[in-house]
Amino acid sequence: MEPGGGDLVRFGQGRAAQVLPTRLLLLPLLLGRGLRVVAAASSSGAAAEDSSAMEELATEKEAEESHRQDSVSLLTFILLLTLTILTIWLFKHRRVRFLHETGLAMIYGLIVGVILRYGTPATSGHDKSLSCTQEDRAFSTLLVNVSGKFFEYTLKGEISPGKINSVEQNDMLRKVTFDPEVFFNILLPPIIFHAGYSLKKRHFFRNLGSILAYAFLGTAVSCFIIGNLMYGVVKLMKMVGQLTDKFYYTDCLFFGAIISATDPVTVLAIFNELHADVDLYALLFGESVLNDAVAIVLSSSIVAYQPAGLNTHAFDAAAFFKSVGIFLGIFSGSFTMGAVTGVVTALVTKFTKLHCFPLLETALFFLMSWSTFLLAEACGFTGVVAVLFCGITQAHYTYNNLSVESRGRTKQLFEVLHFLAENFIFSYMGLALFTFQKHVFSPIFIIGAFVAIFLGRAAHIYPLSFFLNLGRRHKIGWNFQHMMMFSGLRGAMAFALAIRDTASYARQMMFTTTLLIVFFTVWIVGGGTTPMLSWLNIRVGVDPDQDPPPNNDSFQVLQGDGPDSTGGNQTKQESAWLFRLWYSFDHNYLKPILTHSGPPLTNTLPAWCGLLARCLTSPQVYDNQEPLREEDSDFILTEGDLTLTYGDSTVTANGSSGSHTASMSLEGSRRTKSSSEEVLERDLGMGDQKVSSWGTRLVFPLEDNA
Amino acid sequence: MEPGGGDLVRFGQGRAAQVLPTRLLLLPLLLGRGLRVVAAASSSGAAAEDSSAMEELATEKEAEESHRQDSVSLLTFILLLTLTILTIWLFKHRRVRFLHETGLAMIYGLIVGVILRYGTPATSGHDKSLSCTQEDRAFSTLLVNVSGKFFEYTLKGEISPGKINSVEQNDMLRKVTFDPEVFFNILLPPIIFHAGYSLKKRHFFRNLGSILAYAFLGTAVSCFIIGNLMYGVVKLMKMVGQLTDKFYYTDCLFFGAIISATDPVTVLAIFNELHADVDLYALLFGESVLNDAVAIVLSSSIVAYQPAGLNTHAFDAAAFFKSVGIFLGIFSGSFTMGAVTGVVTALVTKFTKLHCFPLLETALFFLMSWSTFLLAEACGFTGVVAVLFCGITQAHYTYNNLSVESRGRTKQLFEVLHFLAENFIFSYMGLALFTFQKHVFSPIFIIGAFVAIFLGRAAHIYPLSFFLNLGRRHKIGWNFQHMMMFSGLRGAMAFALAIRDTASYARQMMFTTTLLIVFFTVWIVGGGTTPMLSWLNIRVGVDPDQDPPPNNDSFQVLQGDGPDSTGGNQTKQESAWLFRLWYSFDHNYLKPILTHSGPPLTNTLPAWCGLLARCLTSPQVYDNQEPLREEDSDFILTEGDLTLTYGDSTVTANGSSGSHTASMSLEGSRRTKSSSEEVLERDLGMGDQKVSSWGTRLVFPLEDNA
Repeated sequence: MEPGGGDLVRFGQGRAAQVLPTRLLLLPLLLGRGLRVVAAASSSGAAAEDSSAMEELATEKEAEESHRQDSVSLLTFILLLTLTILTIWLFKHRRVRFLHETGLAMIYGLIVGVILRYGTPATSGHDKSLSCTQEDRAFSTLLVNVSGKFFEYTLKGEISPGKINSVEQNDMLRKVTFDPEVFFNILLPPIIFHAGYSLKKRHFFRNLGSILAYAFLGTAVSCFIIGNLMYGVVKLMKMVGQLTDKFYYTDCLFFGAIISATDPVTVLAIFNELHADVDLYALLFGESVLNDAVAIVLSSSIVAYQPAGLNTHAFDAAAFFKSVGIFLGIFSGSFTMGAVTGVVTALVTKFTKLHCFPLLETALFFLMSWSTFLLAEACGFTGVVAVLFCGITQAHYTYNNLSVESRGRTKQLFEVLHFLAENFIFSYMGLALFTFQKHVFSPIFIIGAFVAIFLGRAAHIYPLSFFLNLGRRHKIGWNFQHMMMFSGLRGAMAFALAIRDTASYARQMMFTTTLLIVFFTVWIVGGGTTPMLSWLNIRVGVDPDQDPPPNNDSFQVLQGDGPDSTGGNQTKQESAWLFRLWYSFDHNYLKPILTHSGPPLTNTLPAWCGLLARCLTSPQVYDNQEPLREEDSDFILTEGDLTLTYGDSTVTANGSSGSHTASMSLEGSRRTKSSSEEVLERDLGMGDQKVSSWGTRLVFPLEDNA
Repeated sequence: MEPGGGDLVRFGQGRAAQVLPTRLLLLPLLLGRGLRVVAAASSSGAAAEDSSAMEELATEKEAEESHRQDSVSLLTFILLLTLTILTIWLFKHRRVRFLHETGLAMIYGLIVGVILRYGTPATSGHDKSLSCTQEDRAFSTLLVNVSGKFFEYTLKGEISPGKINSVEQNDMLRKVTFDPEVFFNILLPPIIFHAGYSLKKRHFFRNLGSILAYAFLGTAVSCFIIGNLMYGVVKLMKMVGQLTDKFYYTDCLFFGAIISATDPVTVLAIFNELHADVDLYALLFGESVLNDAVAIVLSSSIVAYQPAGLNTHAFDAAAFFKSVGIFLGIFSGSFTMGAVTGVVTALVTKFTKLHCFPLLETALFFLMSWSTFLLAEACGFTGVVAVLFCGITQAHYTYNNLSVESRGRTKQLFEVLHFLAENFIFSYMGLALFTFQKHVFSPIFIIGAFVAIFLGRAAHIYPLSFFLNLGRRHKIGWNFQHMMMFSGLRGAMAFALAIRDTASYARQMMFTTTLLIVFFTVWIVGGGTTPMLSWLNIRVGVDPDQDPPPNNDSFQVLQGDGPDSTGGNQTKQESAWLFRLWYSFDHNYLKPILTHSGPPLTNTLPAWCGLLARCLTSPQVYDNQEPLREEDSDFILTEGDLTLTYGDSTVTANGSSGSHTASMSLEGSRRTKSSSEEVLERDLGMGDQKVSSWGTRLVFPLEDNA
């Protein structure tokens, strides 16, 4: 090869050939093309050095070109999101509720996907060389000797032989296709952390038993039922000759697991806006947050189900129990990781005076929360699940130690990250329907899947609600059950799980089906929520800090914001002894150790660990806390229950004007906040603050934690 | 190869072989090793399918292992940052000023680097296969046939033949080495945007002429002098036989360009804390922000200097002028990109009612600011430079349209990002001294570089200050000049430019030298700032909103915070007509078009474009604005100058109690803010708000933009 002295110009930053600026995006595969262009343009003979310089130039130019294309594809997404934001604003401004922002993001994504698919020429930027044949195995790195120069290649992955001729792809389509792990490692964590950090604590804990039942039992039931139904569908497809590739029972169960992660983001947004029933909100939100975690771990455990011997897809009890063990191991490990990082953050923020420097505090909070994810991944657990429990712990303990400014900052930071990540995922979904290259549309499978998820959801909600109602005092009414049934949308988590592995034919079919399920549930259910709410007579416009009616008869009485003086006792009876035990433990020991609130440890711990107790108790507690009386333990227990109920009951029982004033000013200040902030503010710690101050008869300043 | 049925267990999430989860980090090169382990463990013969399943398992396990190592290395950095934050807090708490947080981050990085370097075994995770020999050229993608299975490889880059045997590297060291482009595309943009967004506008614009002179002329002078001196050093090295590799004149100039980017972050932090002289602060900050941009573009232009013909390193006038053209082209292009995105954001936030939804507003602001970067990169300009000017535009226009909540959110968001990115870069620098594999320590070059940057800085500060003082009314005193000379530290930008290309021997030597220069300047200058300030008699504890003394004689008079009633006139004379023209244009046309403040366009535009003016003027302006009087244009001009001076002069001149009250209450509310927020608050728009209200004799509410 003798390339001549063409007049290629180095423009812009000189990038070295070694540097491929392609983080976050797939590696550009078009370097080779440029080299060929140079080769074609070669004319007369020139010095060898000149030729190498030209080649270097060309490689550099190609790297630059690739970087430019990366920028353009990211820019496409940013413009998509900008467009979505502006349209959302228009919708909110006009109070349009039939389409949620996520649905909108999908539509815009779809449109851009169509344009990219059919509007851009299908260039083939793929150069292949099949001349290298190795005998034994694949190396991670190849050094290739090209006419005396060495080039380094890295292994990208295996390609199934059938696909080799179909890799002629559109460059732009390839560019907008992200590495699936981006979803798991970059986009999901902020979404899940925000969910944990903004859990409506009071209502969440009051319904904890039911939420856990729906999330764990319900998801398992749903996964099993969907898996079995789909196995039937697959059998049917094989019978009618629609399926020739492998599709095992474990694949069906895997599909059941990934599609069981509900994500009622659109429903909850409408609930939030209309101030729909808080208990229903807590049930739906809590279930969806936890069942994301369950679905991740469940799908990993199903993949890990690997029977011994040659017949790798028959049932094997040992393998089954190993899978169950793996489920429990990953789940408890991730839970522990999350909780431990949360506790460490709480301790650090308590025992340093970081709150004088909100910037440092916020940075520390962010880093510690992120480290949970990495720690869990490094230990082989699931980062996303760890992040969820870290978020809950941070909200429960650390939040109380933060300065007022940092509370705002952390909430807002994660709110923005969550918003961007969520809308990004949904617009990517829209795009993926047209730009993803390996779709497998199978009508039978898709119809079967729709039926299966409907039946799976029904088999999960109604029987479980029936059993839960046997134990619950506040029954979950039929209208609530129907609403929960209706709200079983699938969203970001199902998509992320499905796109994570699209190597086999079965997985590609699952991915396509999941995508369609997400589309239809988000659009149809999202649009139908408001009519459904009124059709099912679910009350809206509820003050979220008000207690629900003890039973349906007293509904009228309570609508006038009247205090419910019997709330405390009821909840005490209602909540199981296990939770009361936990609350008493949390309130007496954990909160005083980890935060500045709660009773002093010197009072709650036995006398022989007095020194330790003095060290651990923060001075603020003594400043804030009345000396406790004889009936200490009883009193604390009542207070613990108040955390469950946190009622206006206390105010009414006291009847003192002081407490009323405090509550009014609090209400007043809260009302002026914007609604998005209000939701968070209302439940993160604010409730606790008030409880601790009200429980101790309002002799302490309200801002005692500041 | 016949691997037997070992008992490898799939644990955790099953990752497909296709999926290499290594964004942000270099691709793991150790996949092959695991495969060899499997091969070595092979025993008896088994079915072919089993073998392939085993291989897949092993690859998957390797991918997981690699992902785990990625997590560990990121975790290392997070723990480093956490440690830094806690130590910073301790230092701030104890008021230790001899070491800045960035210096601290470097020290921790160094320690961890030493541990990684000498504490971990130097395993060789590199598998090479030289069996592939192609004839003509390098392909971007290779498909390799390994016993019937196809693997895809992507081109990573060329390796110089001498390096082939020295690629035996420590895995952990490789893991903590980031792709250099991460610095340019992920870490620098938030730092630079924050710099632009938090420019102390009033003092910045008052000293704009001097700042531009220092940044453009000064950087060019410094680059040229350092380049020439280093060329002498290189000649010397060649003479004494210390340098055998190539080192051209352009390389020396390139070194001059990258090392001319000053970054007085430690000095400015101390200035901020001690409330040192605001004009000196503005000069230093403005110079360092702009010279970063100049240094980037300058270094690109030097790389682009490519003389025609065979003798590629002689002087060529055509190539020189092309380089100058490239400099101007990139600079103005990036500036335009930044300004245009800023203006578009301002228009969008002005003409929609997005400010009712702070979350949407913040997200839009973030996305638009990010899109500047991508847009500039996509067009072949420099994203970092565009981001800087976007930040300035956003602060000048968009900020005024944001809701109060969004102002806080955006400031805090970018503050946190800036803080994290900056400390990350500095701790990475510490780490890189020991973990970077291709250091070239050359004592002569290093000593020469230290002398050269000293002389370069001196040749830039003193002569320029002399010429500037000819035109300035507020002379830049000797103590200021010495302080500027002393504050010429090098930081993140020099590092990022140096690490961007470490392919050749010359560049590696530059990188090592830059690293050492950053270390010593940050530690020594950072520690010496406080003594230097007192030694040079630079006043501290200055109210940043107070005007500087008109000359040194009246220093005593002004120390008592006394108003300087002559400030307005002086500044009018002082500032060049060009800037007054710009201010009048900005105030009369740009501000009214882009924000809700300023005079109505219907008054400032000629009558024939009345319709357009009515459309563009926001209704708030009419609400806020008094009907303008006859002496409109003069009045506006005065007001424009007030933006330059914004003095207590107005208050004193008026002497009305009302204005005093307003200013007092403003001061009071400002004093209660935390210092970090104060700095931003003080200058972003607040100044403008006050000016517009004071200029119109305080008849308007102060919060008129809200």
